[in-house]
Amino acid sequence: MGKSDLKLIKDYQKELTLFGHASALFDWDQQVNMPKKGVGSRAEISAFFGEMAHEKVISEDFYSAILRLRSGRLKGDDRLMVDKLYKDVSKSRKIPKELVSEMARAAAMGHSAWEKARAKKDFSVYRKALERIVELKRKQASLIGLPGHPYNSLLDDFEEGMTAEKLIPVFRKLKKELVGLLRKIERSKVYKNQRRVYTSREFDKSKQESFVRDVAKRMGLKKEFSRIDISEHPFTTKVGVDDIRFTVAYRENPLFAFESGVHEAGHALYESGLPKKHAYDTLGDAPSLGIHESQSRFWENMISKSEAFWRFYFPKFDKEFGLGRDFEGWFREVNYIEPGMIRVESDEVHYCLHVILRFEIELGLLDGSIKVADLPKIWNKKAKEVFGRGPKDDVEGVLQDVHWSGGAIGYFPTYALGTIYAAQIYEFLRKKYSWLEKDIEKGNYSRIRKWLKENIHEKGSTMLADDIIKKATGRGLNPDAFVRYLNRKYGKIYGF
Amino acid sequence: MGKSDLKLIKDYQKELTLFGHASALFDWDQQVNMPKKGVGSRAEISAFFGEMAHEKVISEDFYSAILRLRSGRLKGDDRLMVDKLYKDVSKSRKIPKELVSEMARAAAMGHSAWEKARAKKDFSVYRKALERIVELKRKQASLIGLPGHPYNSLLDDFEEGMTAEKLIPVFRKLKKELVGLLRKIERSKVYKNQRRVYTSREFDKSKQESFVRDVAKRMGLKKEFSRIDISEHPFTTKVGVDDIRFTVAYRENPLFAFESGVHEAGHALYESGLPKKHAYDTLGDAPSLGIHESQSRFWENMISKSEAFWRFYFPKFDKEFGLGRDFEGWFREVNYIEPGMIRVESDEVHYCLHVILRFEIELGLLDGSIKVADLPKIWNKKAKEVFGRGPKDDVEGVLQDVHWSGGAIGYFPTYALGTIYAAQIYEFLRKKYSWLEKDIEKGNYSRIRKWLKENIHEKGSTMLADDIIKKATGRGLNPDAFVRYLNRKYGKIYGF
Repeated sequence: MGKSDLKLIKDYQKELTLFGHASALFDWDQQVNMPKKGVGSRAEISAFFGEMAHEKVISEDFYSAILRLRSGRLKGDDRLMVDKLYKDVSKSRKIPKELVSEMARAAAMGHSAWEKARAKKDFSVYRKALERIVELKRKQASLIGLPGHPYNSLLDDFEEGMTAEKLIPVFRKLKKELVGLLRKIERSKVYKNQRRVYTSREFDKSKQESFVRDVAKRMGLKKEFSRIDISEHPFTTKVGVDDIRFTVAYRENPLFAFESGVHEAGHALYESGLPKKHAYDTLGDAPSLGIHESQSRFWENMISKSEAFWRFYFPKFDKEFGLGRDFEGWFREVNYIEPGMIRVESDEVHYCLHVILRFEIELGLLDGSIKVADLPKIWNKKAKEVFGRGPKDDVEGVLQDVHWSGGAIGYFPTYALGTIYAAQIYEFLRKKYSWLEKDIEKGNYSRIRKWLKENIHEKGSTMLADDIIKKATGRGLNPDAFVRYLNRKYGKIYGF
Repeated sequence: MGKSDLKLIKDYQKELTLFGHASALFDWDQQVNMPKKGVGSRAEISAFFGEMAHEKVISEDFYSAILRLRSGRLKGDDRLMVDKLYKDVSKSRKIPKELVSEMARAAAMGHSAWEKARAKKDFSVYRKALERIVELKRKQASLIGLPGHPYNSLLDDFEEGMTAEKLIPVFRKLKKELVGLLRKIERSKVYKNQRRVYTSREFDKSKQESFVRDVAKRMGLKKEFSRIDISEHPFTTKVGVDDIRFTVAYRENPLFAFESGVHEAGHALYESGLPKKHAYDTLGDAPSLGIHESQSRFWENMISKSEAFWRFYFPKFDKEFGLGRDFEGWFREVNYIEPGMIRVESDEVHYCLHVILRFEIELGLLDGSIKVADLPKIWNKKAKEVFGRGPKDDVEGVLQDVHWSGGAIGYFPTYALGTIYAAQIYEFLRKKYSWLEKDIEKGNYSRIRKWLKENIHEKGSTMLADDIIKKATGRGLNPDAFVRYLNRKYGKIYGF
């Protein structure tokens, strides 16, 4: 049986990958090209292909072949593949079809209620829809039934192998350190006297886009296998094995296009580096969103907000945008710390505090200690504790993110995990390779790319995310490197 | 049974339509956006979805539902739908799976051999591959087995209901008239003294593209349901019910982008006008390629090469391209008659002669009276008879078109049918509506669009193409209107 079962599961994975590429193209096209009225047909196509793919995932012959292979004597990558498939497919099969479609309905309702609530700046418009989502998510968690906190069964979808029990102490420590650092920054003279000079202007959008193209090219994203477009929200997707695409989006923030562009380029470089020999099976996927985010954050934060990076790019920016040759002033503004209620607009020091706030609330929603009805009150109280003030309304508070409205509970921690992992990678590289900052100063990222490819990208899903980081840097998840990085950098900028 | 069978066949047709939209998007994206190295994955996706769709078409439950409904008491559109499905599906089921994949292989080989032969300017490199294709096509024709000439079974795929027996006298008459007209033109003083003044220059590409956008907008192609891009070859496709896309391509010929752009806009307008209530069933498709082409030719030839059209656009072109206010000279060059060996570059008078040459050869290939090995000789002889000289090499002759290399035999006549139908429509409109030319002179096409929509587009596949034309204009296929149109127009231009 062994041989033909193996062929069957490989064929299935290939078909599922092709469904994935097709759906990535439908989505990319919708966000980049589709005429407005195309939305009706596109929804039909997405639903139809989504259902076909789901039926394939939960089909009897796929599962029984996996079970037979699992009790067999497979070794190496085939063993890893079957174990991973067993885990993923059993999980999918635990959710009855009715719950899947109920969840889809609740997400559609949730999204529309969320939009209405934002327009009215009133959480209560959204409350019932979110209650339904939380109810279904708790049901899903109890059906999956991973050990420990019920949250684990949701988190595992986004960050396989990670648990609330592992995250709680890490986030507790990180929160304490970040709040401490913030208070130090706020007390500094530099902070009290700071004001935006350059970044309060508008920067030409197409020039920002050309800089993104330049960075992406230097990162190794060649035109023959990638492309960059414009969309309302920035995103990265893979529509074929050698066809990786990301987008740039424009916002009021004059550096948003550039910074988020470099962020997406990091995602794209990761996608392009995943192991080609597993292009059509599950080992070729990213093992978690956290590790994906570690790649985008690495390029966005550790590289593109560093002094070495700006040694190379400042003269070019100065020439295009007229920055008065003021390197120091510009560098401070790229790393401008300021309080703000909005996660996606926040700086490196505030960012993870926003995530941790959401994580704490999600834990409570799952174990029942927090009721949806109390969310605005709890949100505002937590915000005040951490940031010193609460949001001026629900749009600036509990309504700011889209995630929950679509049923994505357990997703937020991956943003902080990516940030922490990125700092671990950066500290490791800085200690081990004396060429690191010199290369960045020259705009030459080829040795960095090579290291990332060999140590992170090419692992695909052959290991759990945390094990990849451990093998690459010597340690699994640990916030200390990130804390050291922030203290060193912002101590210098804010003079303490 | 009736009710649930009807639901089943409607569901199937919807799914097949969705497969069609998906495959249109894969193809559009490949020609417009895809990075070079994406081609491998794209081929995998196209093959996978193509097979799934084909299996659906020929599936037992679809066919048996059709058979049951066919012997039932359906009326109106449902009856038309079932009869059309019966015809199409029975035809598909007559071709065994092996022949489908042999044909796919032969087409892949054929295309690559054709490209090699073109590079070497040598038909013999392509001969064997084409022999294989012709052999398989003859096999297909005999399996389909429509009455009359074996060609009918292939032609029917592109032009349902049309036959060699109907085409032969029409094309014979047209050929005689066209050759006669050509000789008259060639003898004229104007012809002997003509030379290109304006169209021997380069015209700015993006300005041509803006003019295409302007014409398309005036034709009624709104941005909310359509878009225009650039690709190597111009084409039109429908990626969703309200998502019609066409492309503009650039060639050495300075007016190619503009003229082919208007041509594709005609196709796009037709697609957008097909009946919405049949958006997801077979009655919403075009009944034939000929009628599709009648819409592109109508806008390209009858409208955009007319005096009335240039009364509106000449001042704008003059301003952009500097045409020295010479309306007469410009108009002559837009309608410049000159001998040429290449179909896609030929003028209105030569065009159908190229098509008829191919039709005559295809008939011979199918009934066995022409051997592939003799093609260059036969081609060159026929070209000399009609055009007064033969091609300088095979690339200018038998190797010029891609169609046969992919197995498309029986396709060429639809180009001439489209041209003939377009002239019938135009003559009818000119006689009946005194506003026609005045509207065109004002750049106002809304009454033309309305008439086309009601009388051609909205019929979808509820009637055969020829019956649609007959109902709309009072006559089925007849070349006289086209001959009158050409004689009137070119008599005036060439002064006889």
